[in-house]
Amino acid sequence: MRWIKFSAAGRTAYGVVEGERIIEVAGDPFNGYERTTQSHAVRDVKIEVPLIPRTFYCAGLNYTAHVKEHAAKVGGKANIPEKPDIGYRAVNALIAHEEPVIIPRDATEKVQYEGELVAVIGTKAKHLSERDALSCVLGYTIGNDVSERTWQSTDRTLWRGKNTDTFKPMGPWIETAVDLDKLETIVRVNGTVTTRFPTNDMLFGVATYIAAMTRYLTLYPGDVIWMGTDGTSPNLKAGDTVEVEITGIGTLRNPFVAESD
Amino acid sequence: MRWIKFSAAGRTAYGVVEGERIIEVAGDPFNGYERTTQSHAVRDVKIEVPLIPRTFYCAGLNYTAHVKEHAAKVGGKANIPEKPDIGYRAVNALIAHEEPVIIPRDATEKVQYEGELVAVIGTKAKHLSERDALSCVLGYTIGNDVSERTWQSTDRTLWRGKNTDTFKPMGPWIETAVDLDKLETIVRVNGTVTTRFPTNDMLFGVATYIAAMTRYLTLYPGDVIWMGTDGTSPNLKAGDTVEVEITGIGTLRNPFVAESD
Repeated sequence: MRWIKFSAAGRTAYGVVEGERIIEVAGDPFNGYERTTQSHAVRDVKIEVPLIPRTFYCAGLNYTAHVKEHAAKVGGKANIPEKPDIGYRAVNALIAHEEPVIIPRDATEKVQYEGELVAVIGTKAKHLSERDALSCVLGYTIGNDVSERTWQSTDRTLWRGKNTDTFKPMGPWIETAVDLDKLETIVRVNGTVTTRFPTNDMLFGVATYIAAMTRYLTLYPGDVIWMGTDGTSPNLKAGDTVEVEITGIGTLRNPFVAESD
Repeated sequence: MRWIKFSAAGRTAYGVVEGERIIEVAGDPFNGYERTTQSHAVRDVKIEVPLIPRTFYCAGLNYTAHVKEHAAKVGGKANIPEKPDIGYRAVNALIAHEEPVIIPRDATEKVQYEGELVAVIGTKAKHLSERDALSCVLGYTIGNDVSERTWQSTDRTLWRGKNTDTFKPMGPWIETAVDLDKLETIVRVNGTVTTRFPTNDMLFGVATYIAAMTRYLTLYPGDVIWMGTDGTSPNLKAGDTVEVEITGIGTLRNPFVAESD
């Protein structure tokens, strides 16, 4: 099942994607819904951010190659995380599929993508075992953890390097039927593949993170967990378009533009 | 004006505190309201968390003495922040005035308070000058940034050290008429004053933070900014009660209890 949030004919609603069409629902995937008699062509609607997270979790360093390559680039030591310590991102930065990432005027040239699997929590959960952990997941979407590497390495926090407005594209929809081990993440810049990795080749998988997190914290419907990325990104510039595809889920596409004066 | 969120007679609503009574309103302080004919004694209601933040910002290190004393305690160098880089906390951890902070079974003895001023954003804001920055603030409440110092210093992120469920008491209400320079923060453990400092004696004040933040990000109604704390805390244990008073705003009181088996 594929959940989409969209705007059409002056209103915003959730719907279920079936082929090229959207069956509009009354309600939402978290609190209950009913199918309506309204339907729309996917190509005719404005796709919205699939949800505004209650808490926006992010695994950060979660693939070995990414940690090592990043360390090599900045000349530091590769600190492979030894346990699943979750981090955070901020909702102000979210934008939808096809909306532009705006590069601030004073950003350096080191603006990069990170294509990530995103787990969307559907039910309240605490003290889940690793075996039961995925029971609280509604489905999966795609995130692009856009990063300004200079700010990321020099600021005391990730507020500006990671959470500048428009730096967190998420979408295009939430897919509930996912076999994690079969997924592949493919990132393209202007149509050329620049990064490709098995999505589930993580240091700590979704179930491991959820089990660790829910020892201390309650997950709520509408929380999201961004699962980190592998490999490295070229520097991006205004005019580029980045597509993050995760096979079996979809493709998240966003143009990059310069901040206007 | 003093905004309170409360439950009484089976429902939850916002109200305005006038003396010892609450005038219930229809609506809320962010989207508009009307006074109703209902009123309640403050002592008769359950006080709720004043709001669930859209984004939960936290300044972290923002008072010179706190940075130096913390560094001395852990044997490190005092890194005084050179600019206002904002951080984040998580909404799962919020609890209301009088609700218990639950100390996890495996926490070390280093569970400590941090009494903080909290700015509550009332209107959408971007690119505010420092002079205009406070125009987006609805009012102020009080936060206790409860911290498990061992986890804080050994985990890769602050997820468990700062954001374990119940570690973020906030309240008891939002005061809109505040003269920042006149405030004093007074923390008591079991009735004895343990920390006392001029609230506005910050490295970077509320206006400075808001001006810096809104250069890169949009603030939204219902965002909160916790402004950091001064001094140090004794270790807290089950059975203790912590009161964070900020003169002119109110007193946030929470008992500490042990996690049950």
